[in-house]
Amino acid sequence: MTRAFPFSAIVGQADMKLAMILTAVDPGIGGVLVFGDRGTGKSTAVRALAALLPQITAIEGCPVNSPTPEDVPDWVETATGQQVRRPTPVVDLPLGVTEDRVTGALDIERALTRGEKAFEPGLLARANRGYLYIDEVNLLEDHVVDLLLDVAQTGVNAVEREGLSIRHPARFVLVGSGNPEEGELRPQLLDRFGLSVDVRSPDTIEERVEVIRRRDAFETDHACFMQRWEIEDAKVRDAITAGRLALPLTRTPDEVLHDCAALSVALGVDGLRGELTMLRAARALAAYEGTAAPDRSHLRRVAPLAMGHRMRRDPLDEASATARVTRAVEEVLA
Amino acid sequence: MTRAFPFSAIVGQADMKLAMILTAVDPGIGGVLVFGDRGTGKSTAVRALAALLPQITAIEGCPVNSPTPEDVPDWVETATGQQVRRPTPVVDLPLGVTEDRVTGALDIERALTRGEKAFEPGLLARANRGYLYIDEVNLLEDHVVDLLLDVAQTGVNAVEREGLSIRHPARFVLVGSGNPEEGELRPQLLDRFGLSVDVRSPDTIEERVEVIRRRDAFETDHACFMQRWEIEDAKVRDAITAGRLALPLTRTPDEVLHDCAALSVALGVDGLRGELTMLRAARALAAYEGTAAPDRSHLRRVAPLAMGHRMRRDPLDEASATARVTRAVEEVLA
Amino acid sequence: MTRAFPFSAIVGQADMKLAMILTAVDPGIGGVLVFGDRGTGKSTAVRALAALLPQITAIEGCPVNSPTPEDVPDWVETATGQQVRRPTPVVDLPLGVTEDRVTGALDIERALTRGEKAFEPGLLARANRGYLYIDEVNLLEDHVVDLLLDVAQTGVNAVEREGLSIRHPARFVLVGSGNPEEGELRPQLLDRFGLSVDVRSPDTIEERVEVIRRRDAFETDHACFMQRWEIEDAKVRDAITAGRLALPLTRTPDEVLHDCAALSVALGVDGLRGELTMLRAARALAAYEGTAAPDRSHLRRVAPLAMGHRMRRDPLDEASATARVTRAVEEVLA
Amino acid sequence: MTRAFPFSAIVGQADMKLAMILTAVDPGIGGVLVFGDRGTGKSTAVRALAALLPQITAIEGCPVNSPTPEDVPDWVETATGQQVRRPTPVVDLPLGVTEDRVTGALDIERALTRGEKAFEPGLLARANRGYLYIDEVNLLEDHVVDLLLDVAQTGVNAVEREGLSIRHPARFVLVGSGNPEEGELRPQLLDRFGLSVDVRSPDTIEERVEVIRRRDAFETDHACFMQRWEIEDAKVRDAITAGRLALPLTRTPDEVLHDCAALSVALGVDGLRGELTMLRAARALAAYEGTAAPDRSHLRRVAPLAMGHRMRRDPLDEASATARVTRAVEEVLA
Amino acid sequence: MTRAFPFSAIVGQADMKLAMILTAVDPGIGGVLVFGDRGTGKSTAVRALAALLPQITAIEGCPVNSPTPEDVPDWVETATGQQVRRPTPVVDLPLGVTEDRVTGALDIERALTRGEKAFEPGLLARANRGYLYIDEVNLLEDHVVDLLLDVAQTGVNAVEREGLSIRHPARFVLVGSGNPEEGELRPQLLDRFGLSVDVRSPDTIEERVEVIRRRDAFETDHACFMQRWEIEDAKVRDAITAGRLALPLTRTPDEVLHDCAALSVALGVDGLRGELTMLRAARALAAYEGTAAPDRSHLRRVAPLAMGHRMRRDPLDEASATARVTRAVEEVLA
Amino acid sequence: MTRAFPFSAIVGQADMKLAMILTAVDPGIGGVLVFGDRGTGKSTAVRALAALLPQITAIEGCPVNSPTPEDVPDWVETATGQQVRRPTPVVDLPLGVTEDRVTGALDIERALTRGEKAFEPGLLARANRGYLYIDEVNLLEDHVVDLLLDVAQTGVNAVEREGLSIRHPARFVLVGSGNPEEGELRPQLLDRFGLSVDVRSPDTIEERVEVIRRRDAFETDHACFMQRWEIEDAKVRDAITAGRLALPLTRTPDEVLHDCAALSVALGVDGLRGELTMLRAARALAAYEGTAAPDRSHLRRVAPLAMGHRMRRDPLDEASATARVTRAVEEVLA
Repeated sequence: MTRAFPFSAIVGQADMKLAMILTAVDPGIGGVLVFGDRGTGKSTAVRALAALLPQITAIEGCPVNSPTPEDVPDWVETATGQQVRRPTPVVDLPLGVTEDRVTGALDIERALTRGEKAFEPGLLARANRGYLYIDEVNLLEDHVVDLLLDVAQTGVNAVEREGLSIRHPARFVLVGSGNPEEGELRPQLLDRFGLSVDVRSPDTIEERVEVIRRRDAFETDHACFMQRWEIEDAKVRDAITAGRLALPLTRTPDEVLHDCAALSVALGVDGLRGELTMLRAARALAAYEGTAAPDRSHLRRVAPLAMGHRMRRDPLDEASATARVTRAVEEVLA
Repeated sequence: MTRAFPFSAIVGQADMKLAMILTAVDPGIGGVLVFGDRGTGKSTAVRALAALLPQITAIEGCPVNSPTPEDVPDWVETATGQQVRRPTPVVDLPLGVTEDRVTGALDIERALTRGEKAFEPGLLARANRGYLYIDEVNLLEDHVVDLLLDVAQTGVNAVEREGLSIRHPARFVLVGSGNPEEGELRPQLLDRFGLSVDVRSPDTIEERVEVIRRRDAFETDHACFMQRWEIEDAKVRDAITAGRLALPLTRTPDEVLHDCAALSVALGVDGLRGELTMLRAARALAAYEGTAAPDRSHLRRVAPLAMGHRMRRDPLDEASATARVTRAVEEVLA
Repeated sequence: MTRAFPFSAIVGQADMKLAMILTAVDPGIGGVLVFGDRGTGKSTAVRALAALLPQITAIEGCPVNSPTPEDVPDWVETATGQQVRRPTPVVDLPLGVTEDRVTGALDIERALTRGEKAFEPGLLARANRGYLYIDEVNLLEDHVVDLLLDVAQTGVNAVEREGLSIRHPARFVLVGSGNPEEGELRPQLLDRFGLSVDVRSPDTIEERVEVIRRRDAFETDHACFMQRWEIEDAKVRDAITAGRLALPLTRTPDEVLHDCAALSVALGVDGLRGELTMLRAARALAAYEGTAAPDRSHLRRVAPLAMGHRMRRDPLDEASATARVTRAVEEVLA
Repeated sequence: MTRAFPFSAIVGQADMKLAMILTAVDPGIGGVLVFGDRGTGKSTAVRALAALLPQITAIEGCPVNSPTPEDVPDWVETATGQQVRRPTPVVDLPLGVTEDRVTGALDIERALTRGEKAFEPGLLARANRGYLYIDEVNLLEDHVVDLLLDVAQTGVNAVEREGLSIRHPARFVLVGSGNPEEGELRPQLLDRFGLSVDVRSPDTIEERVEVIRRRDAFETDHACFMQRWEIEDAKVRDAITAGRLALPLTRTPDEVLHDCAALSVALGVDGLRGELTMLRAARALAAYEGTAAPDRSHLRRVAPLAMGHRMRRDPLDEASATARVTRAVEEVLA
Repeated sequence: MTRAFPFSAIVGQADMKLAMILTAVDPGIGGVLVFGDRGTGKSTAVRALAALLPQITAIEGCPVNSPTPEDVPDWVETATGQQVRRPTPVVDLPLGVTEDRVTGALDIERALTRGEKAFEPGLLARANRGYLYIDEVNLLEDHVVDLLLDVAQTGVNAVEREGLSIRHPARFVLVGSGNPEEGELRPQLLDRFGLSVDVRSPDTIEERVEVIRRRDAFETDHACFMQRWEIEDAKVRDAITAGRLALPLTRTPDEVLHDCAALSVALGVDGLRGELTMLRAARALAAYEGTAAPDRSHLRRVAPLAMGHRMRRDPLDEASATARVTRAVEEVLA
Repeated sequence: MTRAFPFSAIVGQADMKLAMILTAVDPGIGGVLVFGDRGTGKSTAVRALAALLPQITAIEGCPVNSPTPEDVPDWVETATGQQVRRPTPVVDLPLGVTEDRVTGALDIERALTRGEKAFEPGLLARANRGYLYIDEVNLLEDHVVDLLLDVAQTGVNAVEREGLSIRHPARFVLVGSGNPEEGELRPQLLDRFGLSVDVRSPDTIEERVEVIRRRDAFETDHACFMQRWEIEDAKVRDAITAGRLALPLTRTPDEVLHDCAALSVALGVDGLRGELTMLRAARALAAYEGTAAPDRSHLRRVAPLAMGHRMRRDPLDEASATARVTRAVEEVLA
């Protein structure tokens, strides 16, 4: 089971796949929060995404994947200066990881053996220019989640500890999976994830059989299975690459700006992150699909992703957050 | 009491014995969770299983039991390259074990005496290719259980601590015993165990007398007793070996796939792990019994093991989870 | 995104901007507490302020930004004696920072390698003569907040630990952001912040569109955008510099003293910090606006900032604290 | 007060004395749990037992009291190989003892001074082949009690910590005293003690006077008192030695097996430990009293000891556990 | 702001000023507890007192301010033997101070570099013969407060830790400020403070204006302001010095003894500390005012200070503790 | 205040003084628990007792005050072998003392500098043959109190930690003061103190005046005051010395034994410690008063001290424990 399950072979889960593709086109959209019961394939999807993404160019030996020699931080001593191709980093936050391993810390070995105060980079360094995946984000302590969101937002990891004062770029997309049954996240944390999606087990027997069949083929007929789906994955990969190139050229019609604000007001969402994210996501979707500018059709598709987790509970309205977003979209963008 | 009580001499407990045999045929089924009061022989069964299993071939001196010299991780310095026969490892998680002893950690002795940062493998290394037994899984802290389940599922132990960044294979079957009276496991944890069984003390006097008589013979007439039951154990061992060989050749009829999905939907079980496990367990049972492909009769026998612990509580239905599985099996596979 | 969003380009938020300008004119007013939901631009404003403020003159290599060689503390060994221009320090309190990193601590490296007991300055040293920003002050432990307020008030950081007995100037304005939904601050802590402001997301669509438009321009048309707003920022900067020079010459009419006391009594505020702060803020406002002495018009504008967070809850009066202050101002200063 | 109070001079407390004698004859019966208020002489009885027991033969310098040179574990460097006579070890678990002192741990002194990773045996080593006494077992943390019971049951102390991986025999009888008023033990823990007894202060004045008189004589007329009671103690000691020899020859009639099982079922006791213990205790009693095989008279006497603490609370039956056992014995063995 | 606000320039607050003066005349009265909201000038008063008090004569280099070479403890190695004049020490207990810094501890630097076990004196040493100020005594952990009160009462700091066994004089007046809204102190702690006072913000506008005016002058017209009030402070200082000389000569009429006891009984105060303190305070007041012996007029003035915090709550009497003391004084001393 | 307040000059408090004298005559009686509010002179009494007691003969340099060279434990390296006279040790348990300082611990200094594992004796060593005083025993953690009671009862301090295995005699009388308002002690702990007394502030004005007068004379007329009361103290000291010699010769009439048991039964006290203590206390009292054997008059006086803290609460009987003891004494010994 050395290679990941193909992204395209995932049955259903359109929202989750769309959210991941959009952040691949524009990482500035912010993290993705995936809600759903265990066993619905959240981890599978993240690992599949890692295998799907285009490679990056980075300086050999640089722990923060710097793209050019000029970008290598001055505390790095191991960089060769050579540019090499690497897979997009997808870093997994292991359970029980300590804060110092996340941010990096004093290199104890060197401190003890050579009396030098050197920095040993952490997972945030390794995740630079890629993805950082937290399974069950609600099991992490708040202060670590906060730290991760903070770094994800500023794009800089600032370490102030043990006499070290180090900064390095740490631009990554945070993907967190959560289980609504295991306790809610604070609204503050929710708001700092760019997009959110719900995943559910398929509920038709046909879909379920298809899931089992593909899983079974993946395990018992690995080579054939991978070959078939690599073709599909390549299509997605190419569209992502094209979308990245198109993004800076994508226009933002005033009408779309106005629609974003109107939707936010209609939904009664606090703060402005929702509409900013919705705008970026719509633009990324347009770029991914090769359209020159986003329009209402794009907004309609990304609004539930950008707004669903930012809605307050309405005790008089039993509809789910997503349904309420969809309803508001229908009204505002009618 | 140097040798374990023979597996075959255990009176009754058919489900527990079946679950253990199935994971011996296909370790990919995942762990086994054994529910039951203390004193019902759970530990005895695990130790009996250890004595029953066929030996493995491993590289001498390799702490992760690598089968060939190529599989030995590069941080291992003690492997000779020689292949030797070893008992299937059955590692006991001692009470109060620390996380660093589970995952392995920095070798403090070498760090202090030689200034080197070397890895000292832990219990997960030792359990590779075998079994890991946790008595009273509900007494372990959640984060350790989570870690064990995580490793059991990915088959890889990734250590990120004290400046170490080590990975090694850790494929094992997790056997946990739990006592429903001492507090429940989180549904998330339950779901990650492949199979579950309930064990109870026998309730007929005849069975109880038989248990005492065998125990007594085991203690007071050891040699005779062991000789007699070794014959029975050998039959089981041979069937397991045969089942392992047959497994890759065992077909999966579409009808069975469909039955698995239909059962899951009928039972209202979240996620897809249940039906995937049921399918694998049915196939392992077919292989163990020398049948070319699983059919409904196999599904009927493994469904309670694979589904029982994945059912939600139904406050209107007082039947036990197992009874409800059985009833659904009757209806769906009628 | 290397340069901060311009202070003047922030849409609305007049109170927050006024409070920050007043503390820039007279740091003795004390800290500012910014209440508001996430996503309302609190952090943006602080970073914008940092870019707006005039530079300071400091001794090169002095960790506490001493203005002249005579001010350099005697434990400092790295100061060159040269005066250099530096940006006003705006120090960010990273999440999870430890108390020793805040106050400074024993330099472990030197202690271990050279057996010397030297002081390693902390964030309080670095913030001297500038700003210290705490995002979500309610997530910090009380004893750290207490320590920060204590130092902010006395202007001295006294370190008594690990055998060190060090003092150094630590005069800074504390800016804390808080979210009223995440639990209240103790009245004791509230009282020690000089001013407080509420920020809210704009609620008209026009304003929201303007916010998104500027943010979008900032990101997609950076150079143009910055050039345009730098002109506005320069006006504010010049007015701050002028206000600082005018402040010592600004008179304090007896009538204003009396009004401050009368307002405090009318509002039933405990202690005297409220009226002292109101007086200083009114004087700073007069100086900033080039008036020779504060009058009732200045008091009217600063009273809500100085008094809002010092009011007790009145269970019979549902009006917000700010509304109650405004009402009292109308009555008392009628 | 250098010598212990004589076992035989304890007034009354027949059950407690019987339980201790039975475990001296057959340590495989498992631990004894003594319930009772403070001041009822529990500690006195344990210390008296220590003085009563026959000596053991052990290898000089062996920290685990190995009987022959072959049994000395290979990590032991201090054994001379000489066989010596030693008192049966009765190890007291001091209050607040740490887990590493119980199990043994890394020898820090050797690690620091010689850089060697040596094992320093703990109290479990010292208790091998003897008794381990825990006063107020309910004041110990559950995980330590669990650890002790685990070792007591397997007879092996397995240490996995600080890079050590040590095993040594640790066969001992665990004697715990508990006070039912200070909180109950978990049923799981109760079940793992072989026998239990209740002790109470004598309630007739005659008995109480006798207790005080003997205590007083013990303190004020020590030599005479000890001489007189040593004669009684010697009789018990001889009977224990004889019982140990007779035990392997003692038969187990089928009828007794059947009675054990029937009693268990009648009492509704979970698990099988109760009847196994009852059988062993009956056999030890027969051996101690010089009978060739246990019969119903023996069962009647040991049933309350083996079953009392394994009964569930019956809210409809106010009789004490012991009374209920006795009643069931009357009915089943009628 | 290098010099403190003058003691005499504090507006109102007669009780607090009296309590501080009395302890300056007779430190044996015990500590002072100042109750009041933040912002009422408690810290200002303590710092003002420090500037007011006469200097002491102490041996140069002695960390415990020993008056003569004979008093220097034998573990002190830095004392020169020269007598010098020093300000009365007023030591501030910084927030978050650790117990070892309070009591003194092993000098780690010397232990590590020279292998010597030397004592590093703490804040209690420095406070000897002076004042120790704890702001918000209710934020300190009980055991530290207890320790401080213990030392304050015995006048000796006994350090038993890390192999040190050190004693040194630690006679100081403890001044604690507390906020009744932030939780009460235990009656045990209350009782160990000699005197207590309540401070409130002035409630007339005139007084408030005067406070602001003086504060403003202190800040904007520092030199003039200090010069004017130094004259007033000098008068108080001289009266304290005279009172100290007069104290041993002040008589204690039997009538006053009797009045103290009668008052205590009338108030139903537990223990005898209240009346002993009242007696000493009355004598100190008489000495301060140049009277040969205290009489009822002195008792009347000090009774509320000595008794207020020692009264039990009376649920049927809503009057404040001070009012109840005053009433009892009127009745008993009528 | 270098010398303690004289024992005989304590006004009233007959019970407390009697209890202390009895333990001075026969330390085997066990500890004394003094209940009462703060300020009632508990600490004063203990310090007074220390000054009152006869000196002991001990070996110079022996940390456990061994009486003869033969008694010096073999780990002691500092003993000279010379016998010297020393005051009876009265050791104060400082607040916040750590368990290792109580029991003694590894000498870290020697371990670090010389690599030797030496024992550094603790407070239990120093208290051997004397008194150990715990002020506010309810503020100590249960496990430390338990440890102290355990050592006090066995007379041996057994240290099993950090690789040390040390035993030394630790025979002392434990004196604890407690405040019933600050939470109760567990019945288990109560029972292990030999005697208990209640102290109250005197409630007549005459007595209170006398207390203040003596305290005042102690402070203002020290030399005279001490001289006068030393005469009284000497009488008590001589009687204690005489009592100690008489004690072994004091008879124990059967009638007294019987009375003790009858009283215990009448009071419904659990366990036998109460009557054993009562017997010893009566005998010590007889010896102290020069009587050949205790009789009912002695029992009457010591019964409340020995029994009061061992009574269960009787919800139907509002009388205090002491009153109920007295009543029972009247009935049983009528």
